[in-house]
This record gives sequence, structure tokens and C-alpha cells, in this order.
Amino acid sequence: MSEKNNIVIIGCGAGGGTAAQFARKTNRDANITIIEKGKYPQYSKCGLPYVISGEIPSFENLIEFSEDWFAKEKIELRLNTSAEGIDVQNKKIIYKNKEGEFEQIYDKLILATGANSSIPPIKNIFENNKLINGIYSLRNIDDGKKILKFANKGVKVVVVGAGLIGLELADVLYKKGLNVTIVEALPNILQNSLDQDMINFIEDNIKEKIRLFTNHLVTRVEANNSNLKKVAILNNNSKEEISIDTDLLIVAAGTKSNVHLAKKIRCEIGKTGAIVVNNKCETSIKDVYAVGDCTEYKDFITNEPICAGLGSIAVRQGIAAGTNAGGGDYKLSDGFLLSRTSRIFDIEIAATGPLLTNLDEYKTIIGKVKGLSLPNYYPGGEPINLKIFADGKNGRILAAQAVGKNSALRINTIACAILNKSNVDAFRKLETTYAPPIAPTLDVITLACDVISLKMARKKIK
Amino acid sequence: MSEKNNIVIIGCGAGGGTAAQFARKTNRDANITIIEKGKYPQYSKCGLPYVISGEIPSFENLIEFSEDWFAKEKIELRLNTSAEGIDVQNKKIIYKNKEGEFEQIYDKLILATGANSSIPPIKNIFENNKLINGIYSLRNIDDGKKILKFANKGVKVVVVGAGLIGLELADVLYKKGLNVTIVEALPNILQNSLDQDMINFIEDNIKEKIRLFTNHLVTRVEANNSNLKKVAILNNNSKEEISIDTDLLIVAAGTKSNVHLAKKIRCEIGKTGAIVVNNKCETSIKDVYAVGDCTEYKDFITNEPICAGLGSIAVRQGIAAGTNAGGGDYKLSDGFLLSRTSRIFDIEIAATGPLLTNLDEYKTIIGKVKGLSLPNYYPGGEPINLKIFADGKNGRILAAQAVGKNSALRINTIACAILNKSNVDAFRKLETTYAPPIAPTLDVITLACDVISLKMARKKIK
Repeated sequence: MSEKNNIVIIGCGAGGGTAAQFARKTNRDANITIIEKGKYPQYSKCGLPYVISGEIPSFENLIEFSEDWFAKEKIELRLNTSAEGIDVQNKKIIYKNKEGEFEQIYDKLILATGANSSIPPIKNIFENNKLINGIYSLRNIDDGKKILKFANKGVKVVVVGAGLIGLELADVLYKKGLNVTIVEALPNILQNSLDQDMINFIEDNIKEKIRLFTNHLVTRVEANNSNLKKVAILNNNSKEEISIDTDLLIVAAGTKSNVHLAKKIRCEIGKTGAIVVNNKCETSIKDVYAVGDCTEYKDFITNEPICAGLGSIAVRQGIAAGTNAGGGDYKLSDGFLLSRTSRIFDIEIAATGPLLTNLDEYKTIIGKVKGLSLPNYYPGGEPINLKIFADGKNGRILAAQAVGKNSALRINTIACAILNKSNVDAFRKLETTYAPPIAPTLDVITLACDVISLKMARKKIK
Repeated sequence: MSEKNNIVIIGCGAGGGTAAQFARKTNRDANITIIEKGKYPQYSKCGLPYVISGEIPSFENLIEFSEDWFAKEKIELRLNTSAEGIDVQNKKIIYKNKEGEFEQIYDKLILATGANSSIPPIKNIFENNKLINGIYSLRNIDDGKKILKFANKGVKVVVVGAGLIGLELADVLYKKGLNVTIVEALPNILQNSLDQDMINFIEDNIKEKIRLFTNHLVTRVEANNSNLKKVAILNNNSKEEISIDTDLLIVAAGTKSNVHLAKKIRCEIGKTGAIVVNNKCETSIKDVYAVGDCTEYKDFITNEPICAGLGSIAVRQGIAAGTNAGGGDYKLSDGFLLSRTSRIFDIEIAATGPLLTNLDEYKTIIGKVKGLSLPNYYPGGEPINLKIFADGKNGRILAAQAVGKNSALRINTIACAILNKSNVDAFRKLETTYAPPIAPTLDVITLACDVISLKMARKKIK
């Protein structure tokens, strides 16, 4: 085996695991090693809420590639092992497990160290440097198991954060019969995913089922014999404080990239606090790649650095880094679209491209339509709200948001148009498939572009 | 009102009706007249089978734009009126209804004369120039009403033709409890829509429910007191003849463009027997446009003339012709993709782009995958078979076929890539939306491109 053929990956999440697979696909001879501090091989973090809901029978079902699978592919997977340091000069990793401390030579290194939950400054949540009983975040299977133990009918839970993960959790806990309260510091739910006008409908739906406090901060908790009893929440505007009895507090208030090792080797860290990578997932240090939630890359439209925090992007970066580390040549597209979707209290939402509300430079023109998934005359059509944003100067499609039936697959088509730098006039001519039981002759994606074309034509006439 | 402002449309199907609407949207002052030989305003022909099935309560529900709607838009809709001739020199239409024969001046004329069912040479089907009792095709509401009268439990029906419409009809009649036999002259069902390897599964499913004779011709019928009793079918290979008792025979063996008027004015008729139009829907005659099933236009990939016969294309041509006749400027894309979909015995099928099996010039590379609509670990994922065709020389995506869950919306995304002349290497990097209850991290559309990329890389290495 060639000495120049050691690929080491730190972290076996979606990004790291995928990188190992694609390194192997590209290079049948390389020595590939994964160092993973947890006890599970590659599994789906995004699936955790659906084990809590019972839709997926057990956490073990989330494992996408087993230890056996890695062994069969001759990828050395070291679980329960933590990378302690990197010696860039001598191209070595120092790692530790219960058997001791060891070294591992690398020729190519891939950092897939992920992110940790951000814990907001809430008084009394720590006892001896640990979260007190009843306070959890949901980043891994062990977190999931702890939450599942509590998740019984009638239990009172406060979820901190009304982003995608907070709402997914609130949804599954509500369906299990828990008494759910959501507390969000920002004025709206899903503020980083969709515009306010798109989520009014979802917010109304949520409020019928659970208590929702937007514009509120959780300020402190009260415990009894180290068990959580109450949380205090503060209205950002009125400064009024309310106390809520609760058995469980789940923190879903965003994440923080884990860049501890990268910092030690002076890898460039960007504005978002994550490792800066390029379209090949190379970092600022030779032969060191990074992928997934610990990285930042540019937005396809704005060119601003973003830390995506999406499994789908971690996988795509894993493909790039693994292929490149294996000796191939794989370049990602020229920025991320952040295509995203979720099911929130049985409503499908999806979006792609940046939130543009405050981006004046594009003089954005918006096409917003409310349509049906099927022709009007065919029964069972479900509502879809769609909003497409185009550059007012040239009609280029910049972003889109959708709520309702098959939003995600419709957003994929618009994402394809954005990736191809298509403008609304070309895109509205796309022949979409049509049959009465399946889709209307003119889909909402076409109708929204028609609205934009009309607005642009009117502007020209003026 | 300006004399130069008379827009006349012959035919109020999807193409003609849409043309009228867009002529009005573009031009608030034009005199717009539609001459329609039938008694209904614009309705969905594609919806006819679903009234027979009972999914749509009545044929009247299929009317998409009512007489009142046209009146409100100040579009003169003359029903039960037939265009008898066109005087190109003096820009006049001669038309006839029960009140007599009249003339109508036009400045712009749009032919939307549609197509008629092709009736194969079957012995004894005509009596006094009319199809005998029990033999129908399904082109309009009146046909639908006749078939519906027959469509009762236990009735025996033979459907001639196993294309999209024949199968849709067989499906709905089977669900109503009829005893259904399909007879198809070609060796396979859906031979003009999908490749054989994609439809095996559908064919097996169909054969469990009804009798299917492929490679058979209906040669003659026998009637008793002018009522259909038997059909004789002939095996193309063995030349063996079988007689089948039947109450009803439905002919769904393709269509023939209605170009009677166009021929009279020496409008250019193309290879397919339809009116040749360009990307603005202009014919060879000045100020005469044509749209829908009576036209042919080039295929986006092969540049060969095709007569699409799809409602979705008729509507898009209607938008173009209406806008242009109204004084606007609307160019369709540089050829048709023929994006198409249907639900056949509860299986969704979809495709876009030409059938490429016999097109050697592209040295086609195929990526075929069998995947699931959801991540493997999430229950309820449904199978999808997808086949993508790329040009072996440069990886450009040429066509795709899909069978299974949400095939149609997936095909839309691939159609967008084709329209943008994307190649597989760019398209596989598209960020598709991902969430466990909605879609996998790597959708089948990505996986099929991965297969092609891999095949192309191997070819280069050789």
C-alpha cells in the first residue's frame, strides 16, 4: 500500500460517512479511516424526531450504514474514539479511546466535526456543568433516547426555538399527547426559513394545537431535587414575565459549528464561525478538507458566507471531499441554494435560495400565487402557496418558497432553474407534466412566473 | 374600434380558448371572436375518463371557462357554429350555424381545429356512414355521455389501443366493474410513451385485472339489429383469429389532425399531417396562427417535426398565439419536450423528451435506478423507477422516464434541466430538498445521474 494513500476522516455523520464512501468509490486502494467519538456508525440525525413520534420503530433504524457495511468496504471505522489533535507538519492525527492514545498518519484529512446545540443563557440550567434533569437538546441518538423516556401522554414540555427542528419536535410531541409550549425569541416562527406572509397559515394551525410564545425569551428554570419544575419566560416587548410549569425543556435554538480542532491548526474560520471551504471542500490548509455543519461556503445568489446546517448539503460536500481526497476531481456548484423542506404539523413547507426581504440590490419582483395541486375540476386537489422571487433588473430567478402539497418537489424544479441561472420568461415556458389526477395544465410554478412577467412588462411600459 | 383589431379563433378547445384569453390579456380593445362547432365552451378533454369513472361528478364540471366568463371578458363565443371556409385575400371567415351562413372579418386568425380519432380499418363498423351502436371513440363530451350510458357493471367492453388514453379508459371502466379487454396492434402497451423495460411492471399489473392482447388487430365486428355483438381479433404473428363477445367497442387508436380548412387555404402541412408552425405559432400564411392538436412543431432534442397531441402543449401554444395575435411578442422554447404523465391502474407514469432507443447519433448513456420516494429508514416510501438518457458525447441530458410515486413532479425537474441544456455533471449537484417524511437526501433524479457520470468516467479511462 502506498504511503501517500492514507485518508483520515474525523466524524462519521452524514458528511463524514459519505466522504468515506466516495473516497472508496474513487480509490479502491486507499487506507480509509474514520474517527468517531460517538458509539454509532453513520445514521440520520434528521430522522430523530420520527423515532420519538413512533413513525420509525427504533433509533437503530436510523443507521444508514452499519459497522459491517464499513468493514465490507474496507473502511476502518473507530467508534468511541476522539481526535485530540492534528500535527499538520508531520501529517498525523492524535486520537484517544479507552485503550489509550494513538497516532494515525494521513495524506488527506477530512474534518467532519459537525456542530453542537447552542444553549441560550438561561439561569440555573446547569448543575455541575451538566444540564439538569429534564433539559435536553436533540443532536444525537442518546439525546433522542432521553427525550423518548419522558415523552408520554400528559407530560408538559417547553420547546425553546421555533425553527425547523423545534417545530418538528413540537409536532411529534404534540402527536404523542404531550402538553406542548413553544417559546421563540424572534417575532415569527421559521424566521430563517420562510417569509412571514407564507407562514401565517401555519402559525394559525399551530396555535390551535399548542401554546406558542413568539418574541419571548426563556430566562431561567426552577428545579426541585435536580428535577426541572418551572421555566420563566420574558416578553421581549412588555418585559412581563410568566412562569410555566413543565416537566421537560428541549432546547432547539440553533447550533454552533464544532471547530475546536480546526482552530488548533489555524485553519481559516469565517464570519459564521465555521471552517471556510471552497467548491472542492478544501480548507485553507493543504490536504485538509472539511464538510458538513462545521463548514461555511458561499450563497449561490448573494455570495455571502453561509453555514448551511443541512443534511443534504453535508452529503453533497461529503461526495466532493471524498472524491477529491481519493484522487478524483469534484467541484460543487458555485454556491449553495439551501434547498430545504419539512413537514410541520402535517403541512409541507419548502424553499430554495436566500431570504430576500432585505436585499434591495436585486429590486426583487415577487410572483405569489395560491393554487391547487390538481386541476380545479378534479376533486382532491390540495392548496399550494408559492412565492417566486426574481431579479427586477433581468428577471433571473433568485429564490422560492412554498407551503402545501408536494411543495418540496416543486421547489426542486425551481432550484434547477436557479442553478441554471434561468429567468422567468424562459422558465414559464417549461412544459410541466399534466394529467387530471396528477397535475394541472399550468402548475403554480408557471403561474407564479406569469405574475412576475406581467409585473416586469408593466414596469417597462411605465 | 380599430379595423385592424379583429382576432378570430376557430375552435374553443384548450388551445383556442387559451389563445382567446391571452389575446384579451394582451389587448384590451381587440374584437375577439371564437367559432366553435360544438355546444360547449372550453372544457377539459383529458378529464373525460374521470367523469366516466365517477371521480368527477358530471361532464359539466369539466367546463373550465363558461359562456359567462367569455362574455365578461368581452370575447364573442359562437357555439354550434362551423367555419366553412377562409378567404385569405379578403381576410374573411365564412361560417354557418342554424341561423344561416355568415362572414366574419379577421386581422389575425388562429386555427385551433384540433384532431379527430383515427378509426382503424375494421370491417362492418360503419352503417350508413355512422359507427354502429356500441362503437365509440372518446374525443368530446357527447362521446363521453354515450359511453357512460353503457358503462355498467358486468358489461363487456373491448378497448382498441393501449396508449395513454386507451389505458386510462380501460382503467376507469375496470373500476366500474366492466369486463375489459384491450387490443393493441403494437407489441407493447404505451409504446409511444415509455420504453419496454419501464412498462413490464405496469403490464403485469394490468394483466391481473383485465385481458390484454398486444400484437393483435381488431379486424371486424358482428352486429345484431345494428347492435354490436362480437369483435374478431387477429394475432399479427400467428395470424390466428379469435372472436370476442362484447357489448361495447371503444376506439383509442390515435388521432388525426383536423386540417381541412388549413389545406383549403394552402397552409403548409408537414410530415405528420399537421399544420407547420414556428415558435410564435405562425403558419406559412401571413396573419394566420395555429395551435394545439392540429399543429406540428419540432422536437427540442431531435429537431424532428412532432404533432404533440397534449393538452399542456395546446395551452402553451394558445398563450403564444393569443399573445402574438393581440400584439405582444411571445416565443415558445426551441422545440417541444413532450413532458407527459398519466395514472394507469393506480400507477403514476411520466416522461419527458423523445424516445431514444433507436437514435444512434447520441450514443446515449442511460442511468437507470430503482429507488424510494422517502429515505430507506422512513416507513411508507414508495418505489420509483427512473431512467435518464444522456448524450454520450458530452453528458447533456436528453430525456427521462419514470414510473412510481410523484413521477410527474420529478420529471418536471429533469425537463427543466433539459430545457437549460444542462449536463449530468451539473444536474447531479442540484440541491434537492430533503426531510425524512418528504424526500431522501439523494433523490432518484440525482442517483440516475450518478450512474451516468460513472459510466462516462469509465469510458474515458478506457
